[in-house]
Amino acid sequence: MEQPPPKSALPLGRLEAFSDGVFAIAITLLVLELHVEPGSEAHLLHSILHEWPSYLAYFTSFLTIGVVWIEHSAITGSLRSADGGLYRLNLLVLLLVGFLPFPTKLVAEFVGDREPERVAVIFYGITLLALSFALTAFVRYAAQDRALVHEHVDSQELEAAMSLSPSGFYVVGILLAFVLPTVAVAAYLASAVYRGLPARTLHRLLWRRD
Amino acid sequence: MEQPPPKSALPLGRLEAFSDGVFAIAITLLVLELHVEPGSEAHLLHSILHEWPSYLAYFTSFLTIGVVWIEHSAITGSLRSADGGLYRLNLLVLLLVGFLPFPTKLVAEFVGDREPERVAVIFYGITLLALSFALTAFVRYAAQDRALVHEHVDSQELEAAMSLSPSGFYVVGILLAFVLPTVAVAAYLASAVYRGLPARTLHRLLWRRD
Amino acid sequence: MEQPPPKSALPLGRLEAFSDGVFAIAITLLVLELHVEPGSEAHLLHSILHEWPSYLAYFTSFLTIGVVWIEHSAITGSLRSADGGLYRLNLLVLLLVGFLPFPTKLVAEFVGDREPERVAVIFYGITLLALSFALTAFVRYAAQDRALVHEHVDSQELEAAMSLSPSGFYVVGILLAFVLPTVAVAAYLASAVYRGLPARTLHRLLWRRD
Amino acid sequence: MEQPPPKSALPLGRLEAFSDGVFAIAITLLVLELHVEPGSEAHLLHSILHEWPSYLAYFTSFLTIGVVWIEHSAITGSLRSADGGLYRLNLLVLLLVGFLPFPTKLVAEFVGDREPERVAVIFYGITLLALSFALTAFVRYAAQDRALVHEHVDSQELEAAMSLSPSGFYVVGILLAFVLPTVAVAAYLASAVYRGLPARTLHRLLWRRD
Repeated sequence: MEQPPPKSALPLGRLEAFSDGVFAIAITLLVLELHVEPGSEAHLLHSILHEWPSYLAYFTSFLTIGVVWIEHSAITGSLRSADGGLYRLNLLVLLLVGFLPFPTKLVAEFVGDREPERVAVIFYGITLLALSFALTAFVRYAAQDRALVHEHVDSQELEAAMSLSPSGFYVVGILLAFVLPTVAVAAYLASAVYRGLPARTLHRLLWRRD
Repeated sequence: MEQPPPKSALPLGRLEAFSDGVFAIAITLLVLELHVEPGSEAHLLHSILHEWPSYLAYFTSFLTIGVVWIEHSAITGSLRSADGGLYRLNLLVLLLVGFLPFPTKLVAEFVGDREPERVAVIFYGITLLALSFALTAFVRYAAQDRALVHEHVDSQELEAAMSLSPSGFYVVGILLAFVLPTVAVAAYLASAVYRGLPARTLHRLLWRRD
Repeated sequence: MEQPPPKSALPLGRLEAFSDGVFAIAITLLVLELHVEPGSEAHLLHSILHEWPSYLAYFTSFLTIGVVWIEHSAITGSLRSADGGLYRLNLLVLLLVGFLPFPTKLVAEFVGDREPERVAVIFYGITLLALSFALTAFVRYAAQDRALVHEHVDSQELEAAMSLSPSGFYVVGILLAFVLPTVAVAAYLASAVYRGLPARTLHRLLWRRD
Repeated sequence: MEQPPPKSALPLGRLEAFSDGVFAIAITLLVLELHVEPGSEAHLLHSILHEWPSYLAYFTSFLTIGVVWIEHSAITGSLRSADGGLYRLNLLVLLLVGFLPFPTKLVAEFVGDREPERVAVIFYGITLLALSFALTAFVRYAAQDRALVHEHVDSQELEAAMSLSPSGFYVVGILLAFVLPTVAVAAYLASAVYRGLPARTLHRLLWRRD
């Protein structure tokens, strides 16, 4: 039988509720950056299509936040308690999730505009890379404290789950952005899609239904 | 007696909490697009009334998101567990809910402006149609996995519940938008009202209190 | 012993969670309308103080939404179940809560500007009055269905609780706005303060700790 | 054995859910103020770096709201019930949390701009000080009513926990802002970092895992 968590541990449910709020808001605020140029009445369809970099950036950030939320949800779902350290690392994850709409806006604005495009896409990639590191730190911290993890979860497996982390992807994407910025955004998008695939280690670990 | 859900299934409560967040934010962000033209001090009442396309678009999107939320709530209320596939389909529903403020803004801006009006209303209709498809996929996926559904719910009935889906309405609306865009928006609104009626199959199924 | 609610009743918790989201977002979005005029570097303190109508409108709307949330929370806290009708009336309450930032913005913009000021304050008052009616309808609907109310709550008392509703206040405020708009905003604010007082019937009913 | 809370006490969970919403939204809305000047295509990297006051303000406010949320979470985690007074004091805390993005925006806009900078930073400091007072009032109110506090929590310790409150920090910061505004912002930031340290009294009290 599972032991109760220590009496004065921090409530895990509250951490989840606050995190759900920040993830949900960040993912929904992205839409505020979508718009068409003033004066586009005459050719609205053309103007809508012309905004493709906005949709690419919107979709990449939406999918990234969505997948990070799924991973976050899978991680906390395997925990039974939280402590102050976990609260702080969670705040770091949320800081980067909440910051993401800013580089997303820059990418939406400057893709297709040779010089600034490169800066925007590298800045975006660095933010994604930092978010990936923060999430890895979050899961490692949790996995190393047996008292935080549900008894039926193998904490070594939990720690290993993020080791196939997407950080490598983002490093490649950042390097790619120096020469082919738009392709780099496509690589960030591909990374989010890959992380969302059912076959990924993290998912196999946490979502199997045996 | 109802069997417990499989141990490593994903938490349904977290999916609901995150979805509630996205629905609540998308439905509340709509208000940010309401404003009066600069320089309308002299005739503020006139300016407020002049913005009727904004209110029509606001109200249509508010009601649509509200009704989709009620349906989403009724669906997950009939489930007892979630899995990775359901999480992904839910993300697709949320992607479209979160995107809706953008075409809403275009409709608010361009209704009454012959040529772009048509493009805006068709774009809006396509988004609503895609949302309707995503919700249908969500309920079908859930209904086909007996392990996800509460034992007292008939999963065939659950699947059938969405078969009188509003997709047909939206197809008609989109076609109508080619000739009578404003009437098409009224049709989208009527669709949301119709979906909110107590007599609808989904509601009969899930809200009966026997 | 309290009987369980009927099996397929709608989940009350989900209604609360979604409502909390909309209330929280509407109350927090209000801050987006606070700003100082461009070009106010030279006299920033003066510019900040000059924006007093914005703070008055912000504070009035914040307090109103806050008090309505407390009342909403007290009402649903006395229920044990929800049904489709309650979901719909709740959506009406949320529609008006979510709409409130728009007239708030108009009041903030036009108070001090004789003619439009009057229109803005009347429009604001009508929205507040409609919100008050919606909340009254919400509590009456709940009180009239014994199956929705907790057994330890007297449903007649619950229904009576809102009968000293603030609607009268708002009618007076709207009439006042025709001659003294700024005073009318102060009356709306006073109404929110009054509704927040511990001695109010609704509060006595629901918050007594016997 | 712990006694049940009085029957008609207000639900603590609902207070937490609403608060989580407001905290999450306020912390995420901050990103909307981050942007680069129009016409910065030519030197985007330079423009991004040039916005350092925005990042300083963003980070300070993010960390402050985050730490206040952790403290709020620790406080309500030590309670077992809420009443009307706690609901009202909580609304005061949320009023200030929700207001914080406005002075943050002013700091981001005017730091580096000698005269208005001083006004903006003092205004920001006063808001932070008021928030600190509100939180202290919140914890004191809770601590003085034995019926609200979990039996395993020493309410005197709870009350003492906030006595090393950051209010002093903010008073110093406000005074400092008269002569060295940018340094004062750094002091506000340091205060948030200090409050986030594990060794702080509040944390020792509430997060020990014995």
